[in-house]
Amino acid sequence: MKYAKNTWYPLAWSHDITRSLTRRTVVEEDVVLYRKQDGEVVALEDLCPHRFTPLSMGRLKGDAIECGYHGLTFDCSGKCIRIPGQPIIASNAVVRSFPVAENMGLVWIWTGNPELADRSKIYDLPQYHDPNWSVLHGDALLIHAHYLDLADNLCDPSHVSFVHQTTLGNQAGEEVPVHHEKQGNAVVTWRWIIDSPAIPLFAKLNRFKGNVDRWHYYHYYTPSTCIIDFGSADTGTGAPQGDRSNCVQMYSCHFITPLDERTSIDHWLEVRNFHQNDSAMDKWLHEELRNAFAEDKAILEAIQKEKERRPDRRPLRLAIDASPVRMRHTVERMIAEESGSPAAAAKAR
Amino acid sequence: MKYAKNTWYPLAWSHDITRSLTRRTVVEEDVVLYRKQDGEVVALEDLCPHRFTPLSMGRLKGDAIECGYHGLTFDCSGKCIRIPGQPIIASNAVVRSFPVAENMGLVWIWTGNPELADRSKIYDLPQYHDPNWSVLHGDALLIHAHYLDLADNLCDPSHVSFVHQTTLGNQAGEEVPVHHEKQGNAVVTWRWIIDSPAIPLFAKLNRFKGNVDRWHYYHYYTPSTCIIDFGSADTGTGAPQGDRSNCVQMYSCHFITPLDERTSIDHWLEVRNFHQNDSAMDKWLHEELRNAFAEDKAILEAIQKEKERRPDRRPLRLAIDASPVRMRHTVERMIAEESGSPAAAAKAR
Amino acid sequence: MKYAKNTWYPLAWSHDITRSLTRRTVVEEDVVLYRKQDGEVVALEDLCPHRFTPLSMGRLKGDAIECGYHGLTFDCSGKCIRIPGQPIIASNAVVRSFPVAENMGLVWIWTGNPELADRSKIYDLPQYHDPNWSVLHGDALLIHAHYLDLADNLCDPSHVSFVHQTTLGNQAGEEVPVHHEKQGNAVVTWRWIIDSPAIPLFAKLNRFKGNVDRWHYYHYYTPSTCIIDFGSADTGTGAPQGDRSNCVQMYSCHFITPLDERTSIDHWLEVRNFHQNDSAMDKWLHEELRNAFAEDKAILEAIQKEKERRPDRRPLRLAIDASPVRMRHTVERMIAEESGSPAAAAKAR
Repeated sequence: MKYAKNTWYPLAWSHDITRSLTRRTVVEEDVVLYRKQDGEVVALEDLCPHRFTPLSMGRLKGDAIECGYHGLTFDCSGKCIRIPGQPIIASNAVVRSFPVAENMGLVWIWTGNPELADRSKIYDLPQYHDPNWSVLHGDALLIHAHYLDLADNLCDPSHVSFVHQTTLGNQAGEEVPVHHEKQGNAVVTWRWIIDSPAIPLFAKLNRFKGNVDRWHYYHYYTPSTCIIDFGSADTGTGAPQGDRSNCVQMYSCHFITPLDERTSIDHWLEVRNFHQNDSAMDKWLHEELRNAFAEDKAILEAIQKEKERRPDRRPLRLAIDASPVRMRHTVERMIAEESGSPAAAAKAR
Repeated sequence: MKYAKNTWYPLAWSHDITRSLTRRTVVEEDVVLYRKQDGEVVALEDLCPHRFTPLSMGRLKGDAIECGYHGLTFDCSGKCIRIPGQPIIASNAVVRSFPVAENMGLVWIWTGNPELADRSKIYDLPQYHDPNWSVLHGDALLIHAHYLDLADNLCDPSHVSFVHQTTLGNQAGEEVPVHHEKQGNAVVTWRWIIDSPAIPLFAKLNRFKGNVDRWHYYHYYTPSTCIIDFGSADTGTGAPQGDRSNCVQMYSCHFITPLDERTSIDHWLEVRNFHQNDSAMDKWLHEELRNAFAEDKAILEAIQKEKERRPDRRPLRLAIDASPVRMRHTVERMIAEESGSPAAAAKAR
Repeated sequence: MKYAKNTWYPLAWSHDITRSLTRRTVVEEDVVLYRKQDGEVVALEDLCPHRFTPLSMGRLKGDAIECGYHGLTFDCSGKCIRIPGQPIIASNAVVRSFPVAENMGLVWIWTGNPELADRSKIYDLPQYHDPNWSVLHGDALLIHAHYLDLADNLCDPSHVSFVHQTTLGNQAGEEVPVHHEKQGNAVVTWRWIIDSPAIPLFAKLNRFKGNVDRWHYYHYYTPSTCIIDFGSADTGTGAPQGDRSNCVQMYSCHFITPLDERTSIDHWLEVRNFHQNDSAMDKWLHEELRNAFAEDKAILEAIQKEKERRPDRRPLRLAIDASPVRMRHTVERMIAEESGSPAAAAKAR
């Protein structure tokens, strides 16, 4: 197995799923998505079992879906309910249906054993729903790279000093070591940078008197969700000790859809405690972060190409890799446990 | 063997073959085509045996062809008649030549044993040559799909109700079963739809008083020619009983060139008994049918991609597949018989 | 081994290598090039050993190069001199550095054993440095073909009569045989065409009274340098006997970079003894030769595709192939000798 299956993957922005048929891919499964007349989202295998026409090329008939080639019609459970010109419907005329749910502006899908699908386990950030915080829905950024290479990047506060020098990082952080800790299936990586200039993005807010104390907590929930809690407060106001009453803070949320072993989509959104409900700030932040994430995309896509050309070459391990390595082991263990091999799981643990 | 060889394949529109060199491909053979000074078409393997330069990059010298790299010159039979700078020409300095013929506005080629090439066996539709009928030469439509998947479509009257709802089909046909019959190497598939609205294409002609009786006969001549005889007459005027004196009728002719296992060209033309010699009707029909065949192309190309990703998955068989299955068996038998294996041929039969 | 390694390959125009980071490829090695503050060229493996980011996506820090992902910094010898956030640098934190040199407007690289790199062995044409001659730096022409197929072309005076009929060849040469001779690792191929019309390129100069005697000497220095010495003088003025005092002469220099087995770059430049320091002549010659070499490119790229489709088909051997065959054997012997196999080397000799 290449992917953990008994887990919820983010799949699409909720606002993109309507009464039209929409094709999406996750862990090499092609899925057609649409809303029933009551608004509920349906996810079916996007393939008519007759001649392998994608069902997304067909049309909705009420809550059912009709194939565009010969009219085979499937209900929301994937059961074929009509074969034009033929009275009998064979029991194998079915398409697979997937459990889905919506949260934080996203449709989530379960591609594993449906009996294990527990919607209460879908990730949630309370501040997303809190009126004192403002939400900016970003982009569905297509990255031609393996999702675990993107995940490396999201367990790694140190890269911002070099990749995002005009937005999220600056020289002050270059030599500050990172820490990490495993919490269940999550890996948290963090560092504090004390009494130093604010990062360019925050400096432009004109909120600080001078140097700041800033934190970067990367919460990576395997296999594919990352919440980056970062913020700053004037040095000396007690942020490191726990007082964040005067801070600027943002949760940068990355919900990754692994399409296949070389393609991923990063659905990103931002939850902030400053300039709430300010559409000019939304627009500016969107632009700044879009530029920053394009910098990651360029590097990750170059790495993907280099790796494919030398599949056997081992990377050099650095101190900053401890957390990404732990994250990868956690994903491997999830996969091994699903495969039912205790030895494999023990080895991965 | 992947293709029947001892058969005539349509290869190019006659009007595209001139005194210029033209490259075409059929069953993975690259061919250079040109006309001799007397107008006869020549077809040679498009590859100089010296350094593998395509001969189509060279030039005509009278009826011979000169390679554009070092001037090796071949006559119409493929024999090398000149090697510049060298007096002796080895006997293996030859390129293959192919039997060709012209009919119905097309150049046909024989890629099998030349001794078996019988020009009288090339398909002909008498109405094509009849002044009471009008001919519209359509397009050479490139389709990124296996030609037998296109062939499935051309043994299948039922798909028009779902794929071509604005032109060739309507809801009236959805539940009407199809019949088929094997006639030598041809498979004929048909259905009559009685006392129902005309198809959109014919309805626009304003020729009918009300409902019509309509027929759709798909004559598939394996491996790659399909003539669709379809027409309509006012209900009650005796069309099903054989009186077609007041009918609107069209022969939609599809001459398929298999380029390779994932690429085909559909040379289509239409022969009709209405609005003869009416160039406005030609233009309108061309546009309508181009749109209709683009609908088939979209579906067939999607199916090709899906099949390549799951080569071992078996399709679900329906009643409407009886005729396509028979067509495929007929092609397999042609191939098996050519391969000289009686057992294989018997099995395919 | 697919390539000779203990040899100098042309890699880039000198004027393209600056204080910016430039990526180039030769014999499947990706290299980042830049100039030190003192102007000297540095060539390093373009791959950070940490996560395989191309170093060319990073930035210069003085004479060192900093990776754009995590700031690992390497000096000109390839030694890692900084890992941000980590005091200890492992001894395997290195990238490969390559010997380089500059001559004739080009950067040359040695990808083999550095101890054998002898800069005095880099090819040089004395006339390039002679003020009585004029130099035109042409293009870096990308050709999607194996460099030895381009090399065939550059051991082959006979193709110009057919490929370059508007510039470098004409009918007078069609039947004139070629001669060749091996000189160490070089193969020289030549022919004289006596008392015939000048080639189109030279005819346009209006320098000749009537017919000319012309020579074409192709000096191929394996593996990838070719100097074509060609010129013309009025017939009867003694050129074939050695008097070139009234001739028009040009050295067409081709410095080939093999990128991989299907891609090459032809860095070409021209050294001439007429219209020296005449920029209008430079411009005209550049245009004419660019057109001529585009003719070669079209043929070589077509051949590459045809060869890939039939890897086992043997070409037909002609008299004119004696020199290209010798050239290929010489390259094979270089490779065999490097591989340390005396038997292989003897067989290739």
